[in-house]
Amino acid sequence: MQAWKDYRDKNKDRFLEEMLDLLRIPSISAKTEHKADMLKCAEAVKKSLLDAGCDKAEVISTPGHPVVYGEKMIDASKPTVLVYGHYDVQPVEPLALWHSGPFDPVIKDGKVFARGSADDKGQFYMHVKALETMVNTHSLSTNIKFLIEGEEEIGSPNLGKFVSDNKERLKADVILISDSSMLSMENPSLDTGVRGLSYIEVEVTGANRDLHSGTYGGAVANPITILAQMIASCHDENNHITIPGFYDDVSVATDKERELLNAAPFDEKEYMDELGVTKLWGEKGYTTYERTGIRPTLEINGIWGGYTGEGAKTVLPSKAYAKISARLVPNQSSEKITDILINYFKSIAPASVTVEAELHHGGEPYMTPIDSKGYKAASKAVETTFGKTPIPVRGGGSIPICSLLEKELNTKIIFMGFGLDNDNLHSPNEKYNLENYYKGIETIPYFHKYFAES
Amino acid sequence: MQAWKDYRDKNKDRFLEEMLDLLRIPSISAKTEHKADMLKCAEAVKKSLLDAGCDKAEVISTPGHPVVYGEKMIDASKPTVLVYGHYDVQPVEPLALWHSGPFDPVIKDGKVFARGSADDKGQFYMHVKALETMVNTHSLSTNIKFLIEGEEEIGSPNLGKFVSDNKERLKADVILISDSSMLSMENPSLDTGVRGLSYIEVEVTGANRDLHSGTYGGAVANPITILAQMIASCHDENNHITIPGFYDDVSVATDKERELLNAAPFDEKEYMDELGVTKLWGEKGYTTYERTGIRPTLEINGIWGGYTGEGAKTVLPSKAYAKISARLVPNQSSEKITDILINYFKSIAPASVTVEAELHHGGEPYMTPIDSKGYKAASKAVETTFGKTPIPVRGGGSIPICSLLEKELNTKIIFMGFGLDNDNLHSPNEKYNLENYYKGIETIPYFHKYFAES
Repeated sequence: MQAWKDYRDKNKDRFLEEMLDLLRIPSISAKTEHKADMLKCAEAVKKSLLDAGCDKAEVISTPGHPVVYGEKMIDASKPTVLVYGHYDVQPVEPLALWHSGPFDPVIKDGKVFARGSADDKGQFYMHVKALETMVNTHSLSTNIKFLIEGEEEIGSPNLGKFVSDNKERLKADVILISDSSMLSMENPSLDTGVRGLSYIEVEVTGANRDLHSGTYGGAVANPITILAQMIASCHDENNHITIPGFYDDVSVATDKERELLNAAPFDEKEYMDELGVTKLWGEKGYTTYERTGIRPTLEINGIWGGYTGEGAKTVLPSKAYAKISARLVPNQSSEKITDILINYFKSIAPASVTVEAELHHGGEPYMTPIDSKGYKAASKAVETTFGKTPIPVRGGGSIPICSLLEKELNTKIIFMGFGLDNDNLHSPNEKYNLENYYKGIETIPYFHKYFAES
Repeated sequence: MQAWKDYRDKNKDRFLEEMLDLLRIPSISAKTEHKADMLKCAEAVKKSLLDAGCDKAEVISTPGHPVVYGEKMIDASKPTVLVYGHYDVQPVEPLALWHSGPFDPVIKDGKVFARGSADDKGQFYMHVKALETMVNTHSLSTNIKFLIEGEEEIGSPNLGKFVSDNKERLKADVILISDSSMLSMENPSLDTGVRGLSYIEVEVTGANRDLHSGTYGGAVANPITILAQMIASCHDENNHITIPGFYDDVSVATDKERELLNAAPFDEKEYMDELGVTKLWGEKGYTTYERTGIRPTLEINGIWGGYTGEGAKTVLPSKAYAKISARLVPNQSSEKITDILINYFKSIAPASVTVEAELHHGGEPYMTPIDSKGYKAASKAVETTFGKTPIPVRGGGSIPICSLLEKELNTKIIFMGFGLDNDNLHSPNEKYNLENYYKGIETIPYFHKYFAES
């Protein structure tokens, strides 16, 4: 529709300025010191929903960070689209590697650099601006509901209860999420699933205090050495995960699925050059797309222990820690894998140390069929604005609430992400291309139109 | 001599107060931010030497932290004792584990708690007060020189040149060091050697930036996982070090030496209880005394990488680091072992990462004979005040400059330490027992007396 494009073009600068204002709020859910920023951000989201044309919007408290809910109901006989997104962001460390402040957005080379630009403020805000566009051009063809949470990056610990307490309010015909990426602007794609997550922290304790490494070294267990040995034991020489039971429930992809997945364009040299590595790493027998899509993985997200400051300290530390997470694929259960991980680290600990391990958070894997009305509407919408049928691919990331959302609301989820893999999600210098932002605002109304027509 | 004891008893409180004043200066040599504190501490040491009766004392600049030199020459025909000590201390992290400020000394249960109390301010200061005692009781029987440096804890990078430039000034008949411990007050001992040290830092780099662990996990090498695998490869299942060439030059202790070493009292249960562990750890085939005395060891002193803050972050980090040090025994060369360690970590790095490794500092192992005039004087001095012949034992720690001191000055070194293994050297809540401090001040004059008489 030309009217949508015209409206977007006329309001281009404001659409950007408003998004930047949202990015300026340091809404880091993992850190208690940002509790007030979280509330401030929720209020800003609520206001943006009302400004865009929602009939009502509210900030709803939870035992953690608040949920923002808004809706624009036009006709009970029309289908309802529930847009899910999150206003919280990942921590920003290591700060020294950012080229500009993570909450001080900078536009450079057609990209906005800021924490949350792609994950997920910039992406859910496309839906807010798409709503405004449809309302002001009198072309909204569905009812629309917004569920924008503040705890996605910490595993959505309070959203499950909120959803199950608010089934009627959240009732919808499809759930639409823009919190993922596409292969490229030239090769648009739609994710057909997200991986699940089990995120644990392991603490290894040797002696009851830090010791002099000369006086005691060689006679008392070093918890860093032991932790390193435990981590090293998790993969074999083929980078296959060795933890007993880890792969038990993995739903094995069919040859057909693997063939489709590998048909997507992939330039290994370009991929390596962009990452600055000369060799890839991964489970033997699988391609890069398979390793990040259909196979579960185990990553060490952080490790620390002993002296980490300037210079040298000859200490034999008392403690060592690691943050460890597994990405799960369909049929694996986050709860079961969490138990397996925790038991593994506890069971292999030698008697010379004690090991504690506990869950940070988890989430189930989720797959969406490509023959649903929702997927077809998304595919047609992307085709309309990009001029190419999007390729269905498996996403490597996780959105913890997906499985529960479908179960509680009995509604399929459609992933229509406009980010790119190199957006530096969860990393310094997170960015979102302005072209993608505007293209998303242009594409979303078509989804509503096609879904209403189907 | 009753006069020494009387003088010490009369000045007990002041002897303590002066030592506490020295402990209040945060002289951490590893941290550039303490450069001014280092100078302040050096000036305080110089003043204390002059106050105690030195004819002259000065603070001498080096390219790093200054050296303090002082002397009291009574008669060129008398023997000269060179006292070596260090006024610098180890870093204090982790600060949260200290029960009181590391530079805010607290007396509790007859112990002074502060960084540097045992290592080495409290110990070298016994020599300053012993000098005062002998001078004021007109009983000094040797010439005495003080070499108190500010870079022991960072490997004495500038002391070698200072010593070789000042051979004449430092000329002595024996070098006396109190920077070690004894088995217990009931079982006094004298160290017959210190271990050498090779301290390196390893940096492992994967991708050129932190990545999203969902998007890239499983397809790009995780530097923490690789570093853990490299560390795990350093020991076999018998906790024997597997690095090729590591043991090549180890001077194997004779059965007689091992027998003597193991004759020293050792209560394994008490040792474990005091450390809060239920099982010891170490190289198979060796006792605890052997593991910390006659065998070289490899410890990870610190490790860090990825997200180490509150909560969870699903990041695949770009970098991981470790601080790693080996303690060396006679005949091993610090330079050679450093090369072996650096080459090992570089050579085992898989092509999916890059590894940098560099030396922090090193020091050669040192052994002193037990039939020298110096050792005999020390043994007799301890016997006089403790009522028991001290047991000769091998110390586990390192004093990097020893080997060079002997070589440049052609003088044997005697280790007469009054600390205890549980003084929490290099750890939170470092302490020095007041009884040991006063006993040291009482014992040292006997060393000078017996050495002069021998």
